[in-house]
Amino acid sequence: MSLSKNKLKYIHSLEQKKIRKEEKVFLAEGPKLVDDLFGHFSCQYLAATAQWFEEHPTAQADEVAEVSTEELMRASLLKSPQQVLAVFQQPEYNIDATIIQKSLSLALDDIQDPGNLGTIIRLADWFGIEHIFCSPDTVDVYNPKTIQATMGAIARVKVHYTSLPDLIGSLQNIPVYGTFLDGNNLYEEPLSEAGIIIMGNEGNGIGAAVEKLVNHRLYIPNYPQQRKTSESLNVAIATAVVCAEFRRQITTR
Amino acid sequence: MSLSKNKLKYIHSLEQKKIRKEEKVFLAEGPKLVDDLFGHFSCQYLAATAQWFEEHPTAQADEVAEVSTEELMRASLLKSPQQVLAVFQQPEYNIDATIIQKSLSLALDDIQDPGNLGTIIRLADWFGIEHIFCSPDTVDVYNPKTIQATMGAIARVKVHYTSLPDLIGSLQNIPVYGTFLDGNNLYEEPLSEAGIIIMGNEGNGIGAAVEKLVNHRLYIPNYPQQRKTSESLNVAIATAVVCAEFRRQITTR
Repeated sequence: MSLSKNKLKYIHSLEQKKIRKEEKVFLAEGPKLVDDLFGHFSCQYLAATAQWFEEHPTAQADEVAEVSTEELMRASLLKSPQQVLAVFQQPEYNIDATIIQKSLSLALDDIQDPGNLGTIIRLADWFGIEHIFCSPDTVDVYNPKTIQATMGAIARVKVHYTSLPDLIGSLQNIPVYGTFLDGNNLYEEPLSEAGIIIMGNEGNGIGAAVEKLVNHRLYIPNYPQQRKTSESLNVAIATAVVCAEFRRQITTR
Repeated sequence: MSLSKNKLKYIHSLEQKKIRKEEKVFLAEGPKLVDDLFGHFSCQYLAATAQWFEEHPTAQADEVAEVSTEELMRASLLKSPQQVLAVFQQPEYNIDATIIQKSLSLALDDIQDPGNLGTIIRLADWFGIEHIFCSPDTVDVYNPKTIQATMGAIARVKVHYTSLPDLIGSLQNIPVYGTFLDGNNLYEEPLSEAGIIIMGNEGNGIGAAVEKLVNHRLYIPNYPQQRKTSESLNVAIATAVVCAEFRRQITTR
């Protein structure tokens, strides 16, 4: 029931996107996160301390291992491993583009930082956004750092990889929002209940092919507006401020 | 002019808070960040490629070294080192608590993640917040990950470490804001132009001693409000949504 060398090697290999894609799995660690994911994703492998198993008598997985804290530390990708580590199967979703016509969605154009992606998934969940469409070059949602940063929101928010110009171009008459330095004041723009908000790459913003499809250019006002400030906000921060304003307008209308 | 073993060891030692504190310095990397910090902080040591020096003929430091890209890679704490690395002196600020009566400030109660702190400094700069007061157990602002995440905003936002109960307790009649799950809807609360916004630890929120001093309890509404969502937002995300709403209210009042 302990942790074999091969298993240890397998767990560590899940840091690589190539292996995760081949195996169609992802890694999650820590009791809160693993609890949140159970029931949403099929668990292939579960390694936990005796105490964790005592507290979770019904936990099921294709393969389970009771391990010592020391073994867990060797397996873990975290700085401070905690009680449980699980390998889940990646879900398979069909893309239904009409969802964009009925509700508010996010599109991410080449976001590179795994922590940013995870944080965006977490805030999307908070603001009731159920679908995130990522360009193919966006960082992998199953990167362990992304999964940890979602804090469990990955169980509720569906993330799709697809060509953004193809997806958005296929839809007629939907509001497509993006943030730009020359955009309109976010607070003065009437924001809709359905549509898609595009957020761009950390360094380069929204790419030219996607920018063409934006029909509502927004700007998050800095304060005071005449003061020289940093040139931009972190992309997850900008996403949050925009999503919060969409929801504020709907609920206070 | 190249990089000695001792210098390499010194640079790497700046990952440790203890050494940074003894030496009263911090490390910054990359052309944009280093450019932003020059003129704001005294530069003790500068290692850069020949190309960087060509583009910066007036760059001054107590000690300079022209290095190869390979040497820079060995010195760097980043995954993809870029052209220049600099060691700056930590600034010394006097705390003027009356600033809280005149403008909007932030207080951070035991924020632990260096990236979160850097992101908060960056967004504070965007929203015109010039002072951040950190509890003594908040992560060190001169952690290299924090400095990188500020994207240069550390040149404009002053960060102070002090007992938050002592600081806030010393002030009379100032609005003290904090976010709580049982707080009032952020959008329905009239927000002031001056005062202090307290943000709590990633896992535990605002500590009991500081919570007592909060006289305006806020809540960032999730959407739709009856839906089960993640239990919380990342602290930098919550800070952004709160600060944005303070500034929205002032500018649209």
